[in-house]
Amino acid sequence: MSINSKRLKSLFKEINSITDTTFGAGITRLAYTNHDKILKELMIKHLSDANLKVEVDEIGNIFARRYGRESGLKAVAFGSHLDSVINGGEYDGVVGVLAALEVINSLDDDGIITKRPLELVIFACEESTRFNISMLGSKAMTHKLDRQKLEVLKDFRGENLSDIFQKYGLNLANLDKIKNRALDYDSFFELHVEQGPLLHSQNLQIGVVSAIAAPHRFGIKIIGTAGHSGTTAMQYRNDALCVASEIILAVERVAKKYADKSVVATCGNCVVKPGVINVIPGEAMILVDLRSTDLESRNLAFNEIKNEIENIQKSRNFSYKIKQISTENPSVLDKDLIELISQEARNLGLKHVIMPSGAGHDTMNISEFCKTAMIFVPSRNGISHNPSEFTSFDDIINGTKLLKNVVLKSANSSKGDFYEKSTFIK
Amino acid sequence: MSINSKRLKSLFKEINSITDTTFGAGITRLAYTNHDKILKELMIKHLSDANLKVEVDEIGNIFARRYGRESGLKAVAFGSHLDSVINGGEYDGVVGVLAALEVINSLDDDGIITKRPLELVIFACEESTRFNISMLGSKAMTHKLDRQKLEVLKDFRGENLSDIFQKYGLNLANLDKIKNRALDYDSFFELHVEQGPLLHSQNLQIGVVSAIAAPHRFGIKIIGTAGHSGTTAMQYRNDALCVASEIILAVERVAKKYADKSVVATCGNCVVKPGVINVIPGEAMILVDLRSTDLESRNLAFNEIKNEIENIQKSRNFSYKIKQISTENPSVLDKDLIELISQEARNLGLKHVIMPSGAGHDTMNISEFCKTAMIFVPSRNGISHNPSEFTSFDDIINGTKLLKNVVLKSANSSKGDFYEKSTFIK
Repeated sequence: MSINSKRLKSLFKEINSITDTTFGAGITRLAYTNHDKILKELMIKHLSDANLKVEVDEIGNIFARRYGRESGLKAVAFGSHLDSVINGGEYDGVVGVLAALEVINSLDDDGIITKRPLELVIFACEESTRFNISMLGSKAMTHKLDRQKLEVLKDFRGENLSDIFQKYGLNLANLDKIKNRALDYDSFFELHVEQGPLLHSQNLQIGVVSAIAAPHRFGIKIIGTAGHSGTTAMQYRNDALCVASEIILAVERVAKKYADKSVVATCGNCVVKPGVINVIPGEAMILVDLRSTDLESRNLAFNEIKNEIENIQKSRNFSYKIKQISTENPSVLDKDLIELISQEARNLGLKHVIMPSGAGHDTMNISEFCKTAMIFVPSRNGISHNPSEFTSFDDIINGTKLLKNVVLKSANSSKGDFYEKSTFIK
Repeated sequence: MSINSKRLKSLFKEINSITDTTFGAGITRLAYTNHDKILKELMIKHLSDANLKVEVDEIGNIFARRYGRESGLKAVAFGSHLDSVINGGEYDGVVGVLAALEVINSLDDDGIITKRPLELVIFACEESTRFNISMLGSKAMTHKLDRQKLEVLKDFRGENLSDIFQKYGLNLANLDKIKNRALDYDSFFELHVEQGPLLHSQNLQIGVVSAIAAPHRFGIKIIGTAGHSGTTAMQYRNDALCVASEIILAVERVAKKYADKSVVATCGNCVVKPGVINVIPGEAMILVDLRSTDLESRNLAFNEIKNEIENIQKSRNFSYKIKQISTENPSVLDKDLIELISQEARNLGLKHVIMPSGAGHDTMNISEFCKTAMIFVPSRNGISHNPSEFTSFDDIINGTKLLKNVVLKSANSSKGDFYEKSTFIK
């Protein structure tokens, strides 16, 4: 075991020295910006220095391959992302890439060559901050995004993705040539900060992710009757904001009911029209983010929310419309890998728990093509997407050791059921 | 009884032909605009044609005096306003001015000169639309507004009141000279559309206003904890919007409890921060408009709302701040005049009710200086401040007849307690 914490900390500092300070506090390293490009070039240098074969695909994902002892075996891949939200923290995504490179460097230090090839992956544009779409890199690689859709995509400032790509050194016209490298993976591992409070609050060192929740996002538009706040007696009112309030509390109640099925629901906004102090609200629009790792429970909760709204209609006069925004499927991660990670955590004496992930990760997109697993390390107070995001180096090093061990176990296995002919990567 | 409905309808059409059509549907005649000025000049012509002595004061209120048979008696005054909200209706304010001029013209037709002088009043800038302050004209006349405050006042487009005045032909520097003409009134009457549903829904023709409600306006700022919508389990949340929802329903509950004391309460807006679909709301700000004609009940309701918030704190973790916006005192109108109007309504065979006014009116400001009363005519479906605002001409004529009779009775009375030496108007 030769995890080099000095090397790891040095790379952590180097990565986080690259941030767009014009945004103020914390880390701002939006995808496909100049800061992202500078870091991409720095990483390519580090990966090449580690004698890895580096490729960048048509969406900007970076792949760095270390050859294995045997030919014809699928790779064991691992990685995360380096782009950030605006005013984000130093750990989200970064920790997974740091750990991945340290695993490679440490294997070099140990003089170990695995049976299977290894592949370090840095996904492009994981955060939805710039384009309102998350995980552009892993979605494009796994053919979940059409070029036509990307051609009309604009960032929050209104700049076209194709113009952005040109400046960054990519060409959107080439996107159809992108290869789904996940088809050539035996397994994929992502180490990530939890971004939630469970591990820190329970003094645990490792979360072994069982499943990744996916959001069903929708709006509820409520139409009541606007009226004069002074002249309309209480019994004549159809106040859309009072209806919205009942619905918001119903959404919370339903999510709590299904909490043991890892359901969470959030009304992130409520926009009132006309929204002035002396007019009874005539309209309200609630935005709902409903998630679970269990699709059936999420669907049950959604139906129950609709029933609650219809119950509210028995005592209040209003109409409503549900506007679907997006719906994605949760990912159940690989049971054998969950067991492997748990076993290795026990061997390392790390206090761990098997837990769902409420946040989405690139691993979701990879999970349809190979066995996947995720390792969480604690986030202090559960804070993330915030300059005060923090994970201790002790926790990062524990996670890196664990990642190394499970990668080693997976990459030295060539059981019949693991062995397949490589489809395109020689 | 010689109310001339043709003359009344003709003036109604003439007044409502003056509207700023660039705003779209309905009537838009904002105070101190060019449209307001055109109508002011038209009205001055009509008032002069009716042999009235017209004066315009330093805030733009118009006064038209008809001399009485006896000197040294205080005047009987009556009127309303002609400015409108944006996309308002044809009746709000207009009906009171129409009726007032018709009373004068009709007395001329009848050859009647009253003992007391009469004074028709058209108040300037009753609506709060342009400057976020209502009743500028009656407040300035009764010395409730400082010149210093008005000197820094801007309209919703950011234009200074002093520049607006210059274009309109007024001079803010002269405001200190304004006379409180209400000191010289024996009584003041305002005919107005109800702007609420009571009369129309109960098939009544006249509302005799007992008291005018006044608003206590405040904001409730709620501070919870923002968090990731996916990674924060339900039991770890301090969702400011869920708290806001409980408070909004509590405000409604309290107002319903005090409904028989004419309390109404409206949460007109709820602004959520950060207000995005994937973040648990960390802050919410509710705007509350709490009104009653009964100050004690309004204060009780306010205290009960605060108690409800503190009850919510027993089961939810948040802090809050109440920000006072404005508080005005309700006006109780004159009991003798309420009795007089009721009696005259009975004499005319008009179905009437004594009722509070939920909306504010210029009469509130006058009521501190002389006896005041208000007559309401029905608003179809209670709709006002809307292009579909409607009151039938039958109802307007009923109201005008009633106004004429109560003005006549008041102006021919010179009982000792009514008789006082005129303070400044010769």
